[in-house]
Amino acid sequence: MFDKILIANRGEIATRIIRACQELEIKTVAVYSEADKNALHVALADEAICIGSSKASESYLNMHNVLSAAIVTGAQAIHPGFGFLAENSLFAEMCEECQITFIGPKSKTIEEMGNKINARKIMLDAKVPVIPGSDGAVDSIEDAMKIAKKIGYPLMLKAAAGGGGKGIRKVLNAKELPHHFSSAQQESLAAFGSGEMYIEKIIYPAKHIEVQILGDQFGHVIHLGERDCSLQRNNQKVLEEAPGFSLSDDLRTRIGDTAIKAAKAVSYENAGTIEFLVDEANNFYFMEMNTRIQVEHPVTEMITGIDIVKWQIKIAARQKLTLTQSDVSFSGHAIECRLNAENPAFNFAPSPGKITSLILPSGGLGLRVDSAMYQDYTIPPFYDSMIAKIITHGQTREEALLKMKRALLELVVEGVTTNQMFQLDLLTHPLVIEGSYDTSFLQKEFLPNWSQD
Amino acid sequence: MFDKILIANRGEIATRIIRACQELEIKTVAVYSEADKNALHVALADEAICIGSSKASESYLNMHNVLSAAIVTGAQAIHPGFGFLAENSLFAEMCEECQITFIGPKSKTIEEMGNKINARKIMLDAKVPVIPGSDGAVDSIEDAMKIAKKIGYPLMLKAAAGGGGKGIRKVLNAKELPHHFSSAQQESLAAFGSGEMYIEKIIYPAKHIEVQILGDQFGHVIHLGERDCSLQRNNQKVLEEAPGFSLSDDLRTRIGDTAIKAAKAVSYENAGTIEFLVDEANNFYFMEMNTRIQVEHPVTEMITGIDIVKWQIKIAARQKLTLTQSDVSFSGHAIECRLNAENPAFNFAPSPGKITSLILPSGGLGLRVDSAMYQDYTIPPFYDSMIAKIITHGQTREEALLKMKRALLELVVEGVTTNQMFQLDLLTHPLVIEGSYDTSFLQKEFLPNWSQD
Repeated sequence: MFDKILIANRGEIATRIIRACQELEIKTVAVYSEADKNALHVALADEAICIGSSKASESYLNMHNVLSAAIVTGAQAIHPGFGFLAENSLFAEMCEECQITFIGPKSKTIEEMGNKINARKIMLDAKVPVIPGSDGAVDSIEDAMKIAKKIGYPLMLKAAAGGGGKGIRKVLNAKELPHHFSSAQQESLAAFGSGEMYIEKIIYPAKHIEVQILGDQFGHVIHLGERDCSLQRNNQKVLEEAPGFSLSDDLRTRIGDTAIKAAKAVSYENAGTIEFLVDEANNFYFMEMNTRIQVEHPVTEMITGIDIVKWQIKIAARQKLTLTQSDVSFSGHAIECRLNAENPAFNFAPSPGKITSLILPSGGLGLRVDSAMYQDYTIPPFYDSMIAKIITHGQTREEALLKMKRALLELVVEGVTTNQMFQLDLLTHPLVIEGSYDTSFLQKEFLPNWSQD
Repeated sequence: MFDKILIANRGEIATRIIRACQELEIKTVAVYSEADKNALHVALADEAICIGSSKASESYLNMHNVLSAAIVTGAQAIHPGFGFLAENSLFAEMCEECQITFIGPKSKTIEEMGNKINARKIMLDAKVPVIPGSDGAVDSIEDAMKIAKKIGYPLMLKAAAGGGGKGIRKVLNAKELPHHFSSAQQESLAAFGSGEMYIEKIIYPAKHIEVQILGDQFGHVIHLGERDCSLQRNNQKVLEEAPGFSLSDDLRTRIGDTAIKAAKAVSYENAGTIEFLVDEANNFYFMEMNTRIQVEHPVTEMITGIDIVKWQIKIAARQKLTLTQSDVSFSGHAIECRLNAENPAFNFAPSPGKITSLILPSGGLGLRVDSAMYQDYTIPPFYDSMIAKIITHGQTREEALLKMKRALLELVVEGVTTNQMFQLDLLTHPLVIEGSYDTSFLQKEFLPNWSQD
């Protein structure tokens, strides 16, 4: 096992990883930007190193600075968390070259799955169903028009290097296509340095169902069940649940088996997630693989009792994944609400600033808050607006929902605007309570009728 | 089900009960003393009523005021929590007469079990092993001397009405007896209005093992396993664990069965706890029954996934206890540390005052904090010094211990002195890690060698 791990991240996921390390008796090194010197992850870690200025590109995304911090402090491994360098295959490769363990899959796997066109090909070869679409990259608007005609409208234009909802456009008809192609391509070039595009049929109505995978370096792969992440705004998840309550047992088994097949197709090591879309006829299609820990991993932890971050560390330390598929059992239902410092009434504009009063919900069975906030902490304006995750676990979905309602009602965050009441309204919407929502519900039905009063 | 419940308590247990009510969609009424107007339980409840001045005898112990508050607000039931009126059979009777449901056992059961001499008799009749001792009340020092001679020294002198460690004396020899008899009797008179005493043999070395019971109004009784509460100071529990890890499977089964037999002997309704002492030869003896929710109930909740407070409410509403004994399964290990505002270096003197900075531990799997604190809250000097309970749950005892260590290390409470570091030192003592402790360990071995440095 490692003696010391550097956590190349900030915010709640950094504290989550530091806490897991402490429980494994591993020393921790926090890195931070100038804006984060008072952040909780810095206080919790055994050591902390400033790696640059407030701009992420000069600190959390600066691979040389992160690696130097690891070398200087003698950290044997780096946990990238999510975002920042987590799916950067070059960074994983640089770690490998410096003989520092990158806590995640091999750099080759990150690269293979990072290019979505490539990932589609690999999954097709492995007989994993993928969303019907272009065979490879679509090089020009003319090409796109031809392929679109074959697939039919509406369709999705996607950046091969995409992620986080960037470089994605929905195209309703041929007339719209040229404009969307150019703008998505430019967005992708700006965000990822690549303008490679592809086309997918729109699966609609659909559920976003994803499967949590664990694989070790000895070829053993299991899944930890699925999550329903269909409540999304601008392709960003807002509220997640486990298990995928709308699935039949048969479908659940087939999706789980397919996820394992997908992971084995790339000899997957460490924790990862296979994302699927499930249509009304219960067909399911591979969308992409996330080669890292995900924001919503806690809902899976709550229903399985398995600590995914600890397993990431153990697997990276070349330990055997001692869990078999039959060791994984599921108990109850879990829900996660992402708490963001943003103003839903003002198009979800970020709302950084000082937290003048804070009472996090607590108490009772099945409530978990993953957060890096404290009273008097100032949320800097430079990074993602997520400030905490509230997770509830009940014996039934109804109990988990009621517990979340109680938690959101008792939460006090003053000084900054958050999406607390937006989440409460979403959670108590009759169709959410009923479980009758798909990937379009939040954007198409909920938001147009929502007001903050 | 009830529409509205009044919570006749304060502090963390009041918030615990309010939260359970909210998750059952029941309205809540908080009561508070003048000292508690800024307490969290007051803010969390739907309604709040001031029931008197800061002195508990004039507010939380004032039965008429509590009942009036229930009548005025239309509460159909009263949850007494623990302490205060929780084991007051007269109060339960008054509730019954006012047709307000007392959330707990029948007043008759409270009375039967409240008098420890009576409880011993009932258990003896039910063939539940009790600690060898006097057959009934010991009326005078002369009587006590005679009985003591038969039982042998050292022995325990106990108040029949006792509770919370009051009216109890350890007597090493005949010379000590008269003095201890008088002082214990006086203490009991002052605390409980009764000077009735009895004598028990000292079981030593011993483990304090207690069994959580649930019974409904239809005669159905189950147990939720046992807890090890042997780490005590002045007969007050400090750190509790579940399950009782030192028991063999056979002994565990026998103690569980005996606890059910004990509960059935008094037709027990609602949640209760049967406390046993277990000696080195694995003999176990009934000590007493607590006819209320206990401080340490969360460790049982964590390993069973069963919400005891919610079941208290459902049972009081005459719902059937739908769990059978075989529905109760146990997973992993849980530990609770009681966080007190007290100064361990100054003989655990209470340390009330304003909390100027507060960061409660959070994040990750299996950590729970039951608390009524917030930053800038002022802990009043009038009540029990317990301000929070930290509970951890791991797949193994080792994991739960490491998780608690991490939680205690990350906890920040400034402005008042707490037993945080005392608990950390206790938790990391080799004999505690090893699990080799009995009821005398904390007082006899740990404390004499402990210093706050």
